[in-house]
Amino acid sequence: MIGVLGGMGPLATLDFFSKVLAATPASGDADHVPLLIQSDPRIPPRPPAIVGDGVSPLPALLAGRDRLIEAGAKALVMPCNTAHFWYADLIKGCSVPFISIVDASCNELQHKVNPGAHIGIIATRATLVAKIFDAPLQRAGYTPMVPNDHQMDTLVLPGIEFVKSSQSVLGGHLIEQAVQSLLDQGASAVILACTETPLALDAVQSGLRPRTIDSTAALARRCVAWWQAHR
Amino acid sequence: MIGVLGGMGPLATLDFFSKVLAATPASGDADHVPLLIQSDPRIPPRPPAIVGDGVSPLPALLAGRDRLIEAGAKALVMPCNTAHFWYADLIKGCSVPFISIVDASCNELQHKVNPGAHIGIIATRATLVAKIFDAPLQRAGYTPMVPNDHQMDTLVLPGIEFVKSSQSVLGGHLIEQAVQSLLDQGASAVILACTETPLALDAVQSGLRPRTIDSTAALARRCVAWWQAHR
Repeated sequence: MIGVLGGMGPLATLDFFSKVLAATPASGDADHVPLLIQSDPRIPPRPPAIVGDGVSPLPALLAGRDRLIEAGAKALVMPCNTAHFWYADLIKGCSVPFISIVDASCNELQHKVNPGAHIGIIATRATLVAKIFDAPLQRAGYTPMVPNDHQMDTLVLPGIEFVKSSQSVLGGHLIEQAVQSLLDQGASAVILACTETPLALDAVQSGLRPRTIDSTAALARRCVAWWQAHR
Repeated sequence: MIGVLGGMGPLATLDFFSKVLAATPASGDADHVPLLIQSDPRIPPRPPAIVGDGVSPLPALLAGRDRLIEAGAKALVMPCNTAHFWYADLIKGCSVPFISIVDASCNELQHKVNPGAHIGIIATRATLVAKIFDAPLQRAGYTPMVPNDHQMDTLVLPGIEFVKSSQSVLGGHLIEQAVQSLLDQGASAVILACTETPLALDAVQSGLRPRTIDSTAALARRCVAWWQAHR
């Protein structure tokens, strides 16, 4: 059974579950990956704890991690990019593999885009400030590009909030503009490094989707591959 | 946190999760119901254990129930109608409320259709043979109607299997014919008493949906109401 530390937000966790099922070659129920999904929206919001003086979600994340392991999870995933700010703390003393959404996304990028390219990152300000994607992208030979402050305030952050308040179409129009702008500035591909953003683009059936790396889908495919190798 | 005993099948569990989110009035993450969802497709198939000599899923269901309670579930739901064959066994010695999908569906029916009416049931043969819905429907003053053997073999059962093998559109065309036939024979409404069947009808955007009671959605609404009353 794979443990899913989710609820940040619930729609992104649902999307992750959906993408695990879609990524599984199945001719019936029994072919699917056993999952234990914690969707706990009471986990304190991540951005204020990183860029402000918000309460840290780490104790709640550690409690969820241990709950899932005690309940039988043989590996863990966390379909929230911003929460990977605490990834080093979460793998410390963790008795099972914890599959990183950052590694899964960068790995998928490497199969699509050659090193040397500029790669856009659509994410919360906290993910950008904490440079969660920058180091792995640079190690792989890419140059990260991020939206400017004005685009963050008027497109990316309100776009994410629209998804969290079940107005994904409104969010889609904003996120699409942010992605287009990064492509116009020379990005070869754009990582959707906030799990709300693929939902936003899909809600408007965005034609830009093939130019993006969907971090949720990348993690889902890695999760299915892990299960098939270790079941 | 509400525990979800699922994976029978995984797509129906995903659909339940989606319907809980849709049934929650939310302006942000924190308004959503905390869920702990076990999607375990390794639970032995229910129909062969009821109508044949298949291995009983009861030990696996009890283990899942206890796993969810130990992990902190304050109430339980099971988005699989056929598995409610073991409902009496599951509530025995259960330390938290176990919300029944049969009760939730019949309750929703009573808000839509007056007593005295004929009510169709679309379900696995096991659910029909075990008369899981018959007694509560009769107690509420309705006359249950079920598809004939030929329709079960050519429409309902293959329709359910198509959903389980990710061919929901094919399933939808079959399930729609089965629902239409019950309506033609005088049913005032039809209970979709197998959690794969709303997925089938939705895949073909069936115009018959308003004539049906969606057992998955009924359970989701009951689950949200329970959380709001007890949080």
